[in-house]
Amino acid sequence: MDAWRARVDAALASALDGLDGTEPALLAAMRHAVLLGGKRMRPQLVYATGTACGAREDDLDAAAAAVELVHAYSLVHDDLPALDDDALRRGQPTVHVAHGEATAIVAGDALQALAFSLLAHAPLADARRVAMLAELASASGAAGMCGGQAFDLAATGGAPITLDALERLHAMKTGALLRAAVRLGALAAAADAATRSALDRYADALGLAFQIRDDLLDIEGDSATLGKTAGKDAAQDKATFPALIGVEASRARLRELAQRMQDALAGCSGDTRALAALGRRVIERDH
Amino acid sequence: MDAWRARVDAALASALDGLDGTEPALLAAMRHAVLLGGKRMRPQLVYATGTACGAREDDLDAAAAAVELVHAYSLVHDDLPALDDDALRRGQPTVHVAHGEATAIVAGDALQALAFSLLAHAPLADARRVAMLAELASASGAAGMCGGQAFDLAATGGAPITLDALERLHAMKTGALLRAAVRLGALAAAADAATRSALDRYADALGLAFQIRDDLLDIEGDSATLGKTAGKDAAQDKATFPALIGVEASRARLRELAQRMQDALAGCSGDTRALAALGRRVIERDH
Repeated sequence: MDAWRARVDAALASALDGLDGTEPALLAAMRHAVLLGGKRMRPQLVYATGTACGAREDDLDAAAAAVELVHAYSLVHDDLPALDDDALRRGQPTVHVAHGEATAIVAGDALQALAFSLLAHAPLADARRVAMLAELASASGAAGMCGGQAFDLAATGGAPITLDALERLHAMKTGALLRAAVRLGALAAAADAATRSALDRYADALGLAFQIRDDLLDIEGDSATLGKTAGKDAAQDKATFPALIGVEASRARLRELAQRMQDALAGCSGDTRALAALGRRVIERDH
Repeated sequence: MDAWRARVDAALASALDGLDGTEPALLAAMRHAVLLGGKRMRPQLVYATGTACGAREDDLDAAAAAVELVHAYSLVHDDLPALDDDALRRGQPTVHVAHGEATAIVAGDALQALAFSLLAHAPLADARRVAMLAELASASGAAGMCGGQAFDLAATGGAPITLDALERLHAMKTGALLRAAVRLGALAAAADAATRSALDRYADALGLAFQIRDDLLDIEGDSATLGKTAGKDAAQDKATFPALIGVEASRARLRELAQRMQDALAGCSGDTRALAALGRRVIERDH
């Protein structure tokens, strides 16, 4: 896992180094957004899935970096004053606090474009690249991450939402990109249909588990460990799993999702130990 | 030209209709950004270039819509309070005025993703699609449109910039996407290298002419005809061609660029009358 983190960090640094000549404030904001920490969970999902399905790591670097760039841009925009208005991220000032709001908005836009640019230049057959670009675009847009963000905006401070609506919201807002990470790895490896379908089930369970754990951490964690402001959900009257079904039921749900991930991975060919470890980490993480 | 406008309007409407189920406020903001007017110059450049090089219009719809979506998202974000803080666009309230700032930010993000999604699904050979996706990503990002926006932010209200720096700024901020429109048309048609090179010269002259005309209109036009706030550049102390070299020299520059476009088109095979007409329109337009 550490080797994969180093690989994607190198790919990201190299992509940003390739933007030499960019206006300095913009490039500084982009570097801030991408290079100052982060768990790199989405890239690790790309590598874990891709190598499990037989791809070489060299074939996965572009996809790993691209999915992290989309994640990074979404954090920059989510943290803006008009959205979550957050000053702290990964233990650092957020991008708009450090570089100004205008530059933060443009940096986010440029990071999204860079994600597609990297993927378009991945060293893979054209047909695979097209499928991967389509997947990333779909997962990032109105049918995925951005759409989930919009449901979140609509739900915050509004009428209470149902458990189904909350699950759907998170399946889009965070789940779509996590699933895209898994799918990009599988597409790069040209995995068979049965494995791709099992991986989708794994990714869906992992995405939901990620969010439930996030909600629990916001209650139980402290800002120093989290690297972001704790207790924010309650303060902003956000719909969360603990608020809707209680802390104990949320924990029970996590255990059930751990089992679903294990069952799904049993349906994949290849060595899925890294995927299993990532699933456990999502459920056990403290930040 | 009117037929091409109708074609791209239909392609854009169809792409947005395909997002049925999207959170209503987000979809309304995306529709507002895309469907309430606009000259559709970039799509017309795609069609004019592509058909001049032998492509069928059916092969160009996705690229025409994609480039317009990138343009539309850039306007939504440029108009935000942290950037140009503009309330009027195409004679209508800007997206953040009508739909709120948070939704405007997310709508812009989703429109960018939609552009890449449409292009990824264009009915063209994989190799062409990959080349077109790479071109659009490069033209939109830090090396193109977003990078130019950052130079513009840095230049506004700061130390005076040179004519060279101003030309470079606009070659990125508006020129890159106009050139991408031409290049996407040429790539969809698999135009030969000599024609592609001549088209690049045409597009570079057109992009610069577009900006000089824009600067002159900001001085000479009125808000009602422009559909946006006139006199904004001087009020915001923006670097412009008339401010830097004077109105008469700016007009002389436009005449010279008209000649450059004509010379460049002479080097293209195919029927370039529509491209010539678009060039004239850029120079003669009153909004």
